[in-house]
Amino acid sequence: MQRPPADADWMAAAIALSRRGRPASAPNPNVGCLLVKDGTVVGRGWTQPGGRPHAEAMALAAAGDAARGATAYVTLEPCAHASPRGPACSDSLITADVARVVIAAQDPDQRTDGLGIARLRDAGIEVVFNMAPAAARAAMAPWWTRQSEGRPFVTLKLATSLDGCIARADGASRWITGPRARAHGHLERAQHQAILVGRGTFDADAPGLDVRLPGLEDRSPRKMLLTRGTAPAGWTAVAAPEAVGDVDSLLVEGGARTAAAFLAADRVDRLLLYRAPILIGGGKAALGDIGLTDLADAHGRWRPVDSRLLGSDRLDVYERIRTI
Amino acid sequence: MQRPPADADWMAAAIALSRRGRPASAPNPNVGCLLVKDGTVVGRGWTQPGGRPHAEAMALAAAGDAARGATAYVTLEPCAHASPRGPACSDSLITADVARVVIAAQDPDQRTDGLGIARLRDAGIEVVFNMAPAAARAAMAPWWTRQSEGRPFVTLKLATSLDGCIARADGASRWITGPRARAHGHLERAQHQAILVGRGTFDADAPGLDVRLPGLEDRSPRKMLLTRGTAPAGWTAVAAPEAVGDVDSLLVEGGARTAAAFLAADRVDRLLLYRAPILIGGGKAALGDIGLTDLADAHGRWRPVDSRLLGSDRLDVYERIRTI
Repeated sequence: MQRPPADADWMAAAIALSRRGRPASAPNPNVGCLLVKDGTVVGRGWTQPGGRPHAEAMALAAAGDAARGATAYVTLEPCAHASPRGPACSDSLITADVARVVIAAQDPDQRTDGLGIARLRDAGIEVVFNMAPAAARAAMAPWWTRQSEGRPFVTLKLATSLDGCIARADGASRWITGPRARAHGHLERAQHQAILVGRGTFDADAPGLDVRLPGLEDRSPRKMLLTRGTAPAGWTAVAAPEAVGDVDSLLVEGGARTAAAFLAADRVDRLLLYRAPILIGGGKAALGDIGLTDLADAHGRWRPVDSRLLGSDRLDVYERIRTI
Repeated sequence: MQRPPADADWMAAAIALSRRGRPASAPNPNVGCLLVKDGTVVGRGWTQPGGRPHAEAMALAAAGDAARGATAYVTLEPCAHASPRGPACSDSLITADVARVVIAAQDPDQRTDGLGIARLRDAGIEVVFNMAPAAARAAMAPWWTRQSEGRPFVTLKLATSLDGCIARADGASRWITGPRARAHGHLERAQHQAILVGRGTFDADAPGLDVRLPGLEDRSPRKMLLTRGTAPAGWTAVAAPEAVGDVDSLLVEGGARTAAAFLAADRVDRLLLYRAPILIGGGKAALGDIGLTDLADAHGRWRPVDSRLLGSDRLDVYERIRTI
């Protein structure tokens, strides 16, 4: 017989839900909430586009009276500050008479930061907090990076052959990866607020930089061009990796000089490496000079977090190891 | 309760045993044999260094009288030809009075090729054959390639950064991969008859091309140098990828031009790609020109067969898809 789900299992489900809010919840955090009573989900929610309703409000609305006595699994501490757009979620949970609130991560926003937890406790609700801070933060990485470092969370995508080439020497790059890897790349686009390329990629592929997945066409991100000059209509000019502006999640898609510029500025948080099972030999390298002067300095910076086959292509995901 | 092992499980164990014979069994095939009676292993063997005793002889010697009525799991059809160095294994199995013989793959050697099976059947022994030909062939790939194509089975090893570099632009390559990946590379050396490098790698790393694993120092392979000239003492000169000579398994370890020469000649059967979680940027590419003129031609040649983490390095193994 299977064991019944434990707190950690429900929280994992809430964290999965929270990812649905990316990137549309910005500038609000993408939170997930699950209401569970007698082993059954009675409500679920995630931060809606534009940031409201909050995940808790959506889950409470779905549960109605069933919320009474339930346990709420929330990926981020419920907010303690009311706004013109809605009441504070900690108050809503109290009003709904939930019995217990399990929180993955405390809210670093100074308007809440522990106040939500205190308010719930003061109302006699059992609170479990810091249940899964690392996983919750990873799911909210763009918002978290903006909160803690005041800059966007940047993903660099590279699609290469096994020998690390992004094209033949003559520039030919269609196609290196197969349809499943390309579809995954489009899904990544849909989860970012903006996509950035350099001039070479713009000239070669500007019309292709949309989300081309059925039902997700309207999720195409803002388009940014790394240039010291001006950008064409519909595009935003970005003068340097440090000057991306007010987006929380940015996908850098190429080419080699643009990728190198972001790496040299240490502005890349996550690497998406798609690798086709082909060898090119003497082709275009994935990366230009990133200013590395000693091999030893290259180590200890990237942690493998995922690896999977997409058809016969392999996707490897790495995250920057940062000491904050 | 666990189900008892089935034929396929015993055969998988026999195939694992067969790998112990690599590369010392050459020029004989590295065969594995398991004798099982009443659900218990009563004998096991694998082809010994120099090719004798055969796997069946070793297993029968270990089992003694217990072989009577047992099932023999053999990865290759037992030989039908006696030699001055020992009797035919099909005769030995008959003499030992085994009840049943399960064979993974038929022997393509014309001196046996079905004759071993026929002899066992004629003696009233139940024979199951062609049980796991692909897995058995993979375990005997060097011998099988020599038998079927008259050439060595070649593995190409590349150790790169995530962006596909084997060194910094100035040549610095110590270290890219970590100790676990390097130890795995030494284990691969121990499983090959010969190791080949080009002049650049020879000049940079000749003293380092041994097996440096405790207890396996004497398993260091023959050393070959790809050169149109002569080789230094202790090394064999190889003029071209097509002229490797009488080894069945060759490990090509570098550098980029040597790797490209073997790929351009389509003489690589297996790729061992070790990737450290570092970015170099503008470094030395893993591969020189391999003569690819159309990206489409690069596809459909390599099949992913393994991927694993070795510390924080990743090893990906690919095999050449060949239509014979």
